[in-house]
Amino acid sequence: MFKASIKAEIMNEALNALIAFLDEAKFDLNTDGITTKAIDPSNVAMVDLKLSKAAFESFTCDSAVIAIDLIKLSDVLGMAREGDLIELELDEIGHRLRVSYNGITYTLSLLDPSAIRKEPKIPPLSPPCKVIVDGAQVRRAVKAAEKISDCITLGTKGETFYLEAAGDLDQVKLELTKDKLIELTTTQEVKSTFSLDYLDDISKEVAKASEVIIELGKDYPMKMKFKIANGNGDIEYIIAPRIEAE
Amino acid sequence: MFKASIKAEIMNEALNALIAFLDEAKFDLNTDGITTKAIDPSNVAMVDLKLSKAAFESFTCDSAVIAIDLIKLSDVLGMAREGDLIELELDEIGHRLRVSYNGITYTLSLLDPSAIRKEPKIPPLSPPCKVIVDGAQVRRAVKAAEKISDCITLGTKGETFYLEAAGDLDQVKLELTKDKLIELTTTQEVKSTFSLDYLDDISKEVAKASEVIIELGKDYPMKMKFKIANGNGDIEYIIAPRIEAE
Amino acid sequence: MFKASIKAEIMNEALNALIAFLDEAKFDLNTDGITTKAIDPSNVAMVDLKLSKAAFESFTCDSAVIAIDLIKLSDVLGMAREGDLIELELDEIGHRLRVSYNGITYTLSLLDPSAIRKEPKIPPLSPPCKVIVDGAQVRRAVKAAEKISDCITLGTKGETFYLEAAGDLDQVKLELTKDKLIELTTTQEVKSTFSLDYLDDISKEVAKASEVIIELGKDYPMKMKFKIANGNGDIEYIIAPRIEAE
Repeated sequence: MFKASIKAEIMNEALNALIAFLDEAKFDLNTDGITTKAIDPSNVAMVDLKLSKAAFESFTCDSAVIAIDLIKLSDVLGMAREGDLIELELDEIGHRLRVSYNGITYTLSLLDPSAIRKEPKIPPLSPPCKVIVDGAQVRRAVKAAEKISDCITLGTKGETFYLEAAGDLDQVKLELTKDKLIELTTTQEVKSTFSLDYLDDISKEVAKASEVIIELGKDYPMKMKFKIANGNGDIEYIIAPRIEAE
Repeated sequence: MFKASIKAEIMNEALNALIAFLDEAKFDLNTDGITTKAIDPSNVAMVDLKLSKAAFESFTCDSAVIAIDLIKLSDVLGMAREGDLIELELDEIGHRLRVSYNGITYTLSLLDPSAIRKEPKIPPLSPPCKVIVDGAQVRRAVKAAEKISDCITLGTKGETFYLEAAGDLDQVKLELTKDKLIELTTTQEVKSTFSLDYLDDISKEVAKASEVIIELGKDYPMKMKFKIANGNGDIEYIIAPRIEAE
Repeated sequence: MFKASIKAEIMNEALNALIAFLDEAKFDLNTDGITTKAIDPSNVAMVDLKLSKAAFESFTCDSAVIAIDLIKLSDVLGMAREGDLIELELDEIGHRLRVSYNGITYTLSLLDPSAIRKEPKIPPLSPPCKVIVDGAQVRRAVKAAEKISDCITLGTKGETFYLEAAGDLDQVKLELTKDKLIELTTTQEVKSTFSLDYLDDISKEVAKASEVIIELGKDYPMKMKFKIANGNGDIEYIIAPRIEAE
């Protein structure tokens, strides 16, 4: 069984982190909270979301695996305002999730968890560089890059972390020296390029986090980690680099 | 002759109630005010609007019947702000209406009243159930229903008034027990289904009314009545039910 | 060399005055400031912009002629907010302009000035009528005219300045008697008609000017002059009339 209530803004925060590149997802519900791990259809971006029971106003759950149409759920939450309490209740026999707020009850049919694509095993990653930065800076650089190109390069040079993009004729660059970063730890100069298709949606969520941990390498997958739900939730994205033939 | 002035927000309130499903309408202007009665091209929804002379800041009229392109009139009022005084003057010889506000005068040609479709005679309706409810509740249920279906069912069960919709897989329901209603008077359980095509536009207007009188039956036309123009105007909609083959 | 900084809102004000009907423009940079003179591809509207060095927070320039893709520059400035300081620096060897704000640096390639269309010599104009009016009035009349027609007529009758438009069936008119004008000087009644394609975009800029000098004649080009950049810039538009066969 699963019965919980959560503030609308926290539910939306978690949901939006997934919708960045997923239409549907499988969730593990257990006594401690909710987790999901999913990869986008093109195998470029992976998300690992943990929402502890402390993120909820009330939470009663034994154990269940459910799969949800995220677009439909997000649509149904569209009329909820900040502070509204969203009540969730699983109808295991009917394979449905009841979502109620402000007196209106939606009964949504669930998807078959076995029909959701499994996340592939990811070999352990150990990027040599770690940057901690205000998420708003990442968002600004991504928006600027979009005016010029369809990809963005993140890298370090000495004690500077930079985000840059180059189009056929124009360039854009945001340089953040160590004093503008929360932390910069690196054993070598790194540089990897990522598709803005993914970074655009992801950076909208990242923008709200005051501390984003970015782990980078040379033409290597990037990790981005940050807290949601007032510290009661964790998001980790892994994004594959775009490797151009030289 | 007809010469009047009215606050922009009241004129828009009356106009929007008609534009919900009409592009043009015929108006009876007389010494007491303005009335119009019209039916949509598909014969599904009828509106009866009465705007008493007290709704106007000034009102001088003997008697006239005019027909107006509502879309054009609404467009011309688009730059008016709350509190602006709209001045109206009929040029009977030129078949034109002068609409002035903020120093700008629009001279709009009128339509030929005989070219406007006549409203059919409606047999007298006596729905067995009467609900009085805050219009905002109706609007919320309609918006929720639209996420799931293209029609909405209104009904009563015991002392509860409900609005619900069902799609192929999902459902949504708003239940209002008697204590959440202003009034509920019913001699039997009732239930009728209506197209959201009509209810969507109508409920935008209903939403602003703190008291909407809904009269309902079993697969029977619904009446919705409410006041506009600070109590100086009356709107009554009659909406035909959608009757599904069973 | 050219190196300058300017408040975002002033840079946008100047840029928008050009973008009203131009995609690219040639700029004369000199020790006193920046000037540009350009005509739209259809030869209907001309703009003459002067931005003195006093409009800038800092300004160092000897002499240069550069050509800029205005749409791209405007796009790049899209994330700047009121009060942001825009830093500009010309890289003459690389034929590039560096635009920086909030830590982000864009490097934009310049166009070849010789590829930009030259403005034709304009014979000296001496319209017989001069009106000084609040720019917001002009904007209001243009917006009202657009609901009815694709052109607008400006003229005087006695001591009244009017803006009017007529469609097939409807008319709209804004009359401004001398007491509602800042100045009206005329030796004869004048009347000229202009395409709203041009007046729409131009009037958005005009709207912000509390004093616009309009010079008019009979089926004669119109001049519109106003200050920008807190008085440190001048815009002059010349717009050709639309002359209908009678």
